[in-house]
Amino acid sequence: MNNAPHDHIVKSYDEEQRRLIGEILHMGEIAAAQLEAALDVVERRDDRAAQRIIGNDEAIDALERKVSHDVMQLALRGPMARDLREILAGLRIPTDIERIGDYAANVAKRSLALNTVPPVPHTTTLKALGHLAVRQLRDVMEAYRDNDAEKAVLVRERDAELDAAYTSLFRELLTYMMEDARNITPCTHLLFMAKNLERIGDHATNIAENVWFLVKGDTPLPPREKRDTTSTTGQL
Amino acid sequence: MNNAPHDHIVKSYDEEQRRLIGEILHMGEIAAAQLEAALDVVERRDDRAAQRIIGNDEAIDALERKVSHDVMQLALRGPMARDLREILAGLRIPTDIERIGDYAANVAKRSLALNTVPPVPHTTTLKALGHLAVRQLRDVMEAYRDNDAEKAVLVRERDAELDAAYTSLFRELLTYMMEDARNITPCTHLLFMAKNLERIGDHATNIAENVWFLVKGDTPLPPREKRDTTSTTGQL
Repeated sequence: MNNAPHDHIVKSYDEEQRRLIGEILHMGEIAAAQLEAALDVVERRDDRAAQRIIGNDEAIDALERKVSHDVMQLALRGPMARDLREILAGLRIPTDIERIGDYAANVAKRSLALNTVPPVPHTTTLKALGHLAVRQLRDVMEAYRDNDAEKAVLVRERDAELDAAYTSLFRELLTYMMEDARNITPCTHLLFMAKNLERIGDHATNIAENVWFLVKGDTPLPPREKRDTTSTTGQL
Repeated sequence: MNNAPHDHIVKSYDEEQRRLIGEILHMGEIAAAQLEAALDVVERRDDRAAQRIIGNDEAIDALERKVSHDVMQLALRGPMARDLREILAGLRIPTDIERIGDYAANVAKRSLALNTVPPVPHTTTLKALGHLAVRQLRDVMEAYRDNDAEKAVLVRERDAELDAAYTSLFRELLTYMMEDARNITPCTHLLFMAKNLERIGDHATNIAENVWFLVKGDTPLPPREKRDTTSTTGQL
């Protein structure tokens, strides 16, 4: 229950800022749990659990709306210029977490479709990719919690691993599709699920860049190449 | 040149707000032009034009960073509560436009991959889907320009058409893949391109919801079902 009487007392700027950072960390935790649950139902072929994950996504969406609103209210108290970065991060990071939640729910949704066809053996590689994504999300939320710009840069660098794992799974799935037309439908779902996990990595990278900006201000991060080569290679 | 001396004079709150709305409309126009150009290069198989579109995406990204920064600066002048919605819209709409720009660049990028394999005949349906997406973007930007909540609701409703066109193309592409394994690689690119266009529709819908919120405040929009059924149907 968040309706305890003391919630009606206006908190100090710093207290409210701390509360909001806590809410954002909580959002990140829910998204990571959703993602882990989604990876789990793919393996267990559990429709009821998948439906539960899909239903839970609304909670992240609602939190995102609430947090944006509260961050803006805080901004309107007229903070000092040094708080501007905290406010911008507080508006942007929840948007990325909300998108990660959507992708987790989408993995769960596609697992329902996969469950209507015979099992495919390639879900282990998908799970490995998913665990890389979970790790990226958890690490970047820790970087946010600890104002740790170096850790954020590490997460951003490690996105290359996720991209490489995605590209490798992508090519693997294509060969299964070419071998047997009956694999096309399930493998197409797996392709999109893999793409969802790769996109989660991109959002973790966005969060990492926001943590850098929060801690380091205008100090530029080096420009970074996109490494998902599946969209530019013809032979895949 | 935007460096004329009068730019150094601090503008009034209203003037600055109008200028920022103009910048956001300009962002939308660039994204729509990028998307149209991307659809065009898919048809013409023009690698140089595709590279140009990919390069242009940085301009939208830079505008988004600039606009967010300026909107926050405006917020810090301590606007009235009634301006809060304008500021939230000014922070959120550019994010969606920036994502639309990314998807347009991704369509161009995948067209490069398509150009390395023999032509596939299914690009006409893709173009039709793309034109629906362009129309959604242009209409929602007009709704934003004119504070037209009803037009925004129409755009949101029409997203169902885009979803239906996507689902139909998705199924069509799967049949081509099943017919001939040589179609799998190009059709996989087309699948992802189609998905990019469908996602552009989702971002246009996000913008429509922000326009509604801007004009109508807390008056709720009716809950809306996700209609992309490709992720939940087994047989596709």
